[in-house]
Amino acid sequence: MPFEYTLLHRDSGCAARRGTFSTCRGTVQLPTFMPVGTRGSVKGVELRQLQETGAEIVLGNTYHLMVRPGEKVVKALGGLHTFTGWEKPMLTDSGGFQIFSLAQLSKITEEGAVFRSHIDGAKFELTPERSVQVQEDLDSDIAMVLDHVVGLPNTRKVVEDAMARSIRWAKRCKDVHRLETQTQFAIVQGGLEYDLRKICAEELAALDFGGYAIGGLSVGEPPQAMYDCLDVVTPALPENKPRYLMGVGRPEDILEGIRRGVDMFDCVMPSRNGRNAMAFTDQGPKRLRNACYERDTRPLEEGCPCPACRRSLGYLRHLFMTGEMLGPILLTIHNLTYYQRLMADARRAIEEDRFTGFCAEKYAGWSGSTGGQCDPS
Amino acid sequence: MPFEYTLLHRDSGCAARRGTFSTCRGTVQLPTFMPVGTRGSVKGVELRQLQETGAEIVLGNTYHLMVRPGEKVVKALGGLHTFTGWEKPMLTDSGGFQIFSLAQLSKITEEGAVFRSHIDGAKFELTPERSVQVQEDLDSDIAMVLDHVVGLPNTRKVVEDAMARSIRWAKRCKDVHRLETQTQFAIVQGGLEYDLRKICAEELAALDFGGYAIGGLSVGEPPQAMYDCLDVVTPALPENKPRYLMGVGRPEDILEGIRRGVDMFDCVMPSRNGRNAMAFTDQGPKRLRNACYERDTRPLEEGCPCPACRRSLGYLRHLFMTGEMLGPILLTIHNLTYYQRLMADARRAIEEDRFTGFCAEKYAGWSGSTGGQCDPS
Repeated sequence: MPFEYTLLHRDSGCAARRGTFSTCRGTVQLPTFMPVGTRGSVKGVELRQLQETGAEIVLGNTYHLMVRPGEKVVKALGGLHTFTGWEKPMLTDSGGFQIFSLAQLSKITEEGAVFRSHIDGAKFELTPERSVQVQEDLDSDIAMVLDHVVGLPNTRKVVEDAMARSIRWAKRCKDVHRLETQTQFAIVQGGLEYDLRKICAEELAALDFGGYAIGGLSVGEPPQAMYDCLDVVTPALPENKPRYLMGVGRPEDILEGIRRGVDMFDCVMPSRNGRNAMAFTDQGPKRLRNACYERDTRPLEEGCPCPACRRSLGYLRHLFMTGEMLGPILLTIHNLTYYQRLMADARRAIEEDRFTGFCAEKYAGWSGSTGGQCDPS
Repeated sequence: MPFEYTLLHRDSGCAARRGTFSTCRGTVQLPTFMPVGTRGSVKGVELRQLQETGAEIVLGNTYHLMVRPGEKVVKALGGLHTFTGWEKPMLTDSGGFQIFSLAQLSKITEEGAVFRSHIDGAKFELTPERSVQVQEDLDSDIAMVLDHVVGLPNTRKVVEDAMARSIRWAKRCKDVHRLETQTQFAIVQGGLEYDLRKICAEELAALDFGGYAIGGLSVGEPPQAMYDCLDVVTPALPENKPRYLMGVGRPEDILEGIRRGVDMFDCVMPSRNGRNAMAFTDQGPKRLRNACYERDTRPLEEGCPCPACRRSLGYLRHLFMTGEMLGPILLTIHNLTYYQRLMADARRAIEEDRFTGFCAEKYAGWSGSTGGQCDPS
């Protein structure tokens, strides 16, 4: 049976969960991290390279794909899987976050959003119904409901209205959703108003979606505020459905999410930072343009199986200093591999009831206390 | 024994040769095409992807590497093979062509060239002796002698002086060359003055280099002038040494070179054109931004094993229209694969004494007479 969440084990020391989520295109081991393939491509990463990072599910952005090439073109080219060549599960967001963050002149009413494309100013409309239709045309495995995202900090009134509207929109999305090979996740909103978050989670839970996302976080608030919010939201979500923290985040944010019972994450950070010469390692971030690496024959990270780590730090630095495309490519692959290895290690730690200790070890490394590099930062 | 040219077969209908050239790092099947890895990377192509195109030998540019990161840095990082991870043979040029084409304020005297880097204006000197030293530090398998390249058209006097100087410089390069795991190729100059070309070839042949290059062509002259020049030069070169036509070229130029007995080629065209959305195919070039491909579900080229051809034309177009890095990456890989398949087919055609017919077939396809695409161009 498709779209089944299975709880395999709960860590004895915290709320971390080890589970699986099955879809028509395969089963995803949870907790999982989804690389972001905004426009049908994880920037600079070829399909097989992406597979070899260990990724099991990839995210595509509805907003970007409806603007270019248009969901009808993707559909004519066989849907998102045939289009991109990625055969495993894919999740598409609803466009709600991009309307908030990217589109120009967007106007949001109860009916939906009207906005102009950030590319050429062309006018688009995105209602809950249209978001469902676009995602059905894209033929993703997991579709997100359209939500109304607002920035933080904000007044309680604004946050409450957007939360209430998001619930109404979620219902509209559910009502028109037809594609049987696709499941739909709802999105909990409510800013940092914990009571609103709890209400939203409970109301959406009652609607029985395929999974539940926590949205509207990682939009400028302090990390601890996000963690505190998760402490309130995750207990209010159904036990038997996957939980997805949208757009998060740094490795430490992901561990804190897992610790609180979150199963799924996505973020552009590993790919975007990789393009900008910043590598994630167990000794904390390394900035590859740093002069100290000029003649460094060591790999970026010992034991990492990625192609970047089969070269020297000196070579990687050279690629960035000369503007060679291969620098961003290799570092993106490394960072995605780093995130996937972190998730695999986290899954094992949960299975062995040592997730809390695992986090402590990771933090010690990231804070530089175990490192010997020239830029422990 | 390293650095041995072996003639396997000569086509019965033309001067095309099927041979091998052995180096300490492996044997290259001739005729061969060398992808250009200017600064220690074939732009956008990861090592394994490059191997899978079928490439057996890669070119590195001495000028670019001495400017950044500097040959001493490459040496400290283990030499060009360890630096880049490419374990098969590598050829480095001498910097002569870049001084002609790229460097600023270059001044050439009998001693050598003084120029300013095109990057930051830093002053460099490149004498024959220095070119040998740099290439020994880079630790390539085949080093080129420093030559004096002049543009075409030019006066006979200028061409003759540069040719004579190139011979004197070749001798100086030979005198100081010490690295036993590296062989040295001489470069025939002489512009389109056939008598000068012949003299140059004979004088260099007498010096017994490991191989012979034909330089100073493909610099603006009509293709037929280059072919006519090859008709004069190749018969004047030793039978038992490989022949390398530098910086060439289009698929048809390569076939015409092979037809006249050339064994080795290099050119940025497959990679540069690939980055600019132009694909080489048996039906001639395709321009991937063309609107006709928007919903085209067919692959770029039937039967091509490259990753670009496992997607649709519509997807490739989308990548270019949205500026995704993966577009240039995939098309570079396709074009390099196309060139390598062309060389493999050419080698087989020579073995079977049908190289002339093979060329005719290829020309028929490229001219569009067998194509059914929307832009046969």
